[in-house]
Amino acid sequence: MIRGISQAGLGHISTEELVRSARQYGFGAVDINTDTLIADHGIEGTRQLLEDHQVIIGSIGLPVEWRQSDSTFREQLTSLAVTAHHASLLGCQRCCTYILPATDESPAAYMAQSIVRLRQIASILDAYGIRLGLEFVGPYHLRTAWKYPFIHTVADTLTMIDGIDRSNVGLLVDAYHCYTTDFTADDLRQLRADQIVHVHINDARDVPLDQVLDNDRLYPAEGVIDLPAFLQALQDIGYTGVVAQEILSKESPTDSIASLWERSQRGFDHAFRNISPSAFQ
Amino acid sequence: MIRGISQAGLGHISTEELVRSARQYGFGAVDINTDTLIADHGIEGTRQLLEDHQVIIGSIGLPVEWRQSDSTFREQLTSLAVTAHHASLLGCQRCCTYILPATDESPAAYMAQSIVRLRQIASILDAYGIRLGLEFVGPYHLRTAWKYPFIHTVADTLTMIDGIDRSNVGLLVDAYHCYTTDFTADDLRQLRADQIVHVHINDARDVPLDQVLDNDRLYPAEGVIDLPAFLQALQDIGYTGVVAQEILSKESPTDSIASLWERSQRGFDHAFRNISPSAFQ
Amino acid sequence: MIRGISQAGLGHISTEELVRSARQYGFGAVDINTDTLIADHGIEGTRQLLEDHQVIIGSIGLPVEWRQSDSTFREQLTSLAVTAHHASLLGCQRCCTYILPATDESPAAYMAQSIVRLRQIASILDAYGIRLGLEFVGPYHLRTAWKYPFIHTVADTLTMIDGIDRSNVGLLVDAYHCYTTDFTADDLRQLRADQIVHVHINDARDVPLDQVLDNDRLYPAEGVIDLPAFLQALQDIGYTGVVAQEILSKESPTDSIASLWERSQRGFDHAFRNISPSAFQ
Amino acid sequence: MIRGISQAGLGHISTEELVRSARQYGFGAVDINTDTLIADHGIEGTRQLLEDHQVIIGSIGLPVEWRQSDSTFREQLTSLAVTAHHASLLGCQRCCTYILPATDESPAAYMAQSIVRLRQIASILDAYGIRLGLEFVGPYHLRTAWKYPFIHTVADTLTMIDGIDRSNVGLLVDAYHCYTTDFTADDLRQLRADQIVHVHINDARDVPLDQVLDNDRLYPAEGVIDLPAFLQALQDIGYTGVVAQEILSKESPTDSIASLWERSQRGFDHAFRNISPSAFQ
Repeated sequence: MIRGISQAGLGHISTEELVRSARQYGFGAVDINTDTLIADHGIEGTRQLLEDHQVIIGSIGLPVEWRQSDSTFREQLTSLAVTAHHASLLGCQRCCTYILPATDESPAAYMAQSIVRLRQIASILDAYGIRLGLEFVGPYHLRTAWKYPFIHTVADTLTMIDGIDRSNVGLLVDAYHCYTTDFTADDLRQLRADQIVHVHINDARDVPLDQVLDNDRLYPAEGVIDLPAFLQALQDIGYTGVVAQEILSKESPTDSIASLWERSQRGFDHAFRNISPSAFQ
Repeated sequence: MIRGISQAGLGHISTEELVRSARQYGFGAVDINTDTLIADHGIEGTRQLLEDHQVIIGSIGLPVEWRQSDSTFREQLTSLAVTAHHASLLGCQRCCTYILPATDESPAAYMAQSIVRLRQIASILDAYGIRLGLEFVGPYHLRTAWKYPFIHTVADTLTMIDGIDRSNVGLLVDAYHCYTTDFTADDLRQLRADQIVHVHINDARDVPLDQVLDNDRLYPAEGVIDLPAFLQALQDIGYTGVVAQEILSKESPTDSIASLWERSQRGFDHAFRNISPSAFQ
Repeated sequence: MIRGISQAGLGHISTEELVRSARQYGFGAVDINTDTLIADHGIEGTRQLLEDHQVIIGSIGLPVEWRQSDSTFREQLTSLAVTAHHASLLGCQRCCTYILPATDESPAAYMAQSIVRLRQIASILDAYGIRLGLEFVGPYHLRTAWKYPFIHTVADTLTMIDGIDRSNVGLLVDAYHCYTTDFTADDLRQLRADQIVHVHINDARDVPLDQVLDNDRLYPAEGVIDLPAFLQALQDIGYTGVVAQEILSKESPTDSIASLWERSQRGFDHAFRNISPSAFQ
Repeated sequence: MIRGISQAGLGHISTEELVRSARQYGFGAVDINTDTLIADHGIEGTRQLLEDHQVIIGSIGLPVEWRQSDSTFREQLTSLAVTAHHASLLGCQRCCTYILPATDESPAAYMAQSIVRLRQIASILDAYGIRLGLEFVGPYHLRTAWKYPFIHTVADTLTMIDGIDRSNVGLLVDAYHCYTTDFTADDLRQLRADQIVHVHINDARDVPLDQVLDNDRLYPAEGVIDLPAFLQALQDIGYTGVVAQEILSKESPTDSIASLWERSQRGFDHAFRNISPSAFQ
């Protein structure tokens, strides 16, 4: 497994600063949007920057709004192949998006349409050797934030992935969403490593489960999620990919970036304490 | 277009009798279950019987229960290839099932699962050159007959078909369901002929639309549906397949089979009165 | 059926001139590359230009080189969605490419790779409602122009299309390639209209079949191909799409553009002489 | 990794005897045809027999002849779902077939057709949670045993698998075919574990590579293949599936079955000598 970091949790850090500092705090991967880097350094310059700082790109975010109108989707889809091509030239092999647990649309038809669109997205990514990770979203308050329930469990997300029917689609497993959907380490051990495209970790406050808020996450090891057990399960099934920190919060943390790096590193050291070094790079 | 007939509306007629009499009442196709015929006559004997009586098989019903548990589905799927093989040897190229407009399952996950299973079914049928027709179901009372709404419109069924993503899947267009979902002849004209796998006709009582019952259908030309306009639209888009009668009713009609044949023939003569003879066989 | 025209056969005519003049010579569709028009007029201006001159776009050529290296393919694929999006905004629903009948690559592996790449192309086009037409290529001299035979018949192209497994892929049927592969009007009648994405016509010299050259084509009605029978067969199976002229020749014709338009129109009048006006627009 | 055994190499041993004895010679999996066992014991009895003797089924052979006529294929395909259903009830998750390196058919069209048929097979297996393993075949003499070359390398087989486009299809990696195609342990390390459905081991005589015969295989550790390196590479990439012995030979060995078991066990002990016990069960 490879320790990964994202801007979410590091305050107002720039993408480039994230890349430049990650390795010194023990992170081997960065989850980023590559646009600014490429604008500033070009493809080859960005590739070199990553190499110089000994980090790979864990995942990019999906740059296509697939939840709105057909015309929005068609327009946004036009740029996906360029993004995917650039990402592939930078060695990136994963792109992720999330599935909201509720919707204002009629859920059956919305599922069919989501399957069609995510398949089109996956097909383009596949041409560039990139996998698509789908993140199920667990917090209770979001399950009723729109008119109708959609899906929020691993089981339903796997069925959706079967519906999409592209071999490059899998799960983004976020410890926070596992926690809020009662998906345990033992449940995780029932998955195959190749079903998992990407992993997020972070921690949850000690409040009743149905009051855990999506944008109120803690740093690893600062809350109640048993991250060592979570990571042990990933190791047991042979997952060797990236495990990235993503701390969503209402307001950006005001501590110095250096202290946020240290806090992240401490959290990861704690979470990974039982993982043999040979199991990650 | 080819006039087709089914047992639904002809009382207690046997499959074999249906085959033997269809042509003399102007029907060129029969919608049947082939099992009894094959049991009685063998494949070659059944093929000969159809040829001798100058009828083709319009469509067979899908012999797989795809709406229940995984284990039921897996077990029932085992016989599909045999049925499809037999049907193909008899020249049959269509197999149909219907989509209920409501469900007791969570609709988003149920849609994903339905897509997965219907794709598996379609893949098997495709190996035998058979198309799968999906019938959307319109009557209002069925839309609330189970816990959650599912889908009941042409638009949503086409999205579901896109979700299934097999080129041998299309619509079964039933005049009754068009009527109960306000899908007009002009709407029909927006479809391509190759999106339509099969067609049913029958007629509806003159009651408010939301009181039209699924199992209370009339013979063509005995109710309020404008079947000539419906058929004209099918002809306009180049549909050349089978248009079969299907009269679902609470109780089997008690008239003599001969009089039911005549009634069916009269209904078709009326419905097809504007269709040039060259447009059907 | 809609009469279509392309620049191939009209000398040094510009795309815009083709659009402006087509209707007056009886053509309702143009096969063009949309880039110059869009550069000059913008999307909306181009749409207006087509509307003002009462022509639709029959087909655009596929702007992706899918026959070379992976890196070339990946790079060229990046622009396809933009082209497809523009084409769809202009009402175009077809994009075509050709399959050479021989290859320098090992043919089995090359077929597998071609299937993978054309599927990726088809997936992108499908997101924009555009079908992909594959043109088989018949002339004998091309069958041995590269190291190994590939495919050149309708039957093999249909198998390849099955291999691609996308419902928006079909045949481009060119009368010249039918002629050089002995694919007769009766053979054509065995196809379904929805298997045909696009049609080309032109004519062949009266030389032995194995000496018919790919770039030595004649205007319709000036050679030995029975185009009326070819078009009759298309009408019989319900094909309602575009039939476009494509005259490939070693050197560009030197006659005035006006006379080439007239020659094309005469050829089409002859070829379409048995087609009822209602069968084309 | 799980040590597996098949009848090929154990003389005239029956399937049931194979099951009953495997564990005592260190094997945890058997590659079998399940028909006789099911005929003798029923599904539940067979499941119990496997459990009692602490073996799982590694893989079943594909019971469909997909290399001949359409009618043969369609007929044989009818029984696949039954076989797959039974296999799944017995816990089996893999089914394998091989790809001959030459063919009498035109190779491009034959590839397209093979892709279509193997996709249909894979779709059926997938409904039962079973993966399809494709075995590339290396020996030189077979590459020219039919009229045209087909494919025989890992790279081409992976392209074919991409062409098939079903997520449950992968490689059967046989050490003999790796050896005869110069596919080294380092090459193996470039694969992902999830691309490998099944593994065969056996050994090769010390003759020039182009004289190694397909049906002249040796027991593991009796020839020149570096099986420890081969297995090390599999372990390095995280392969945890079955590694089964398959010894093809012109004539069935005449030694006692007990001595053949011992010889097989010795071979495996040697081949697995560097694999940590925790890496296999």
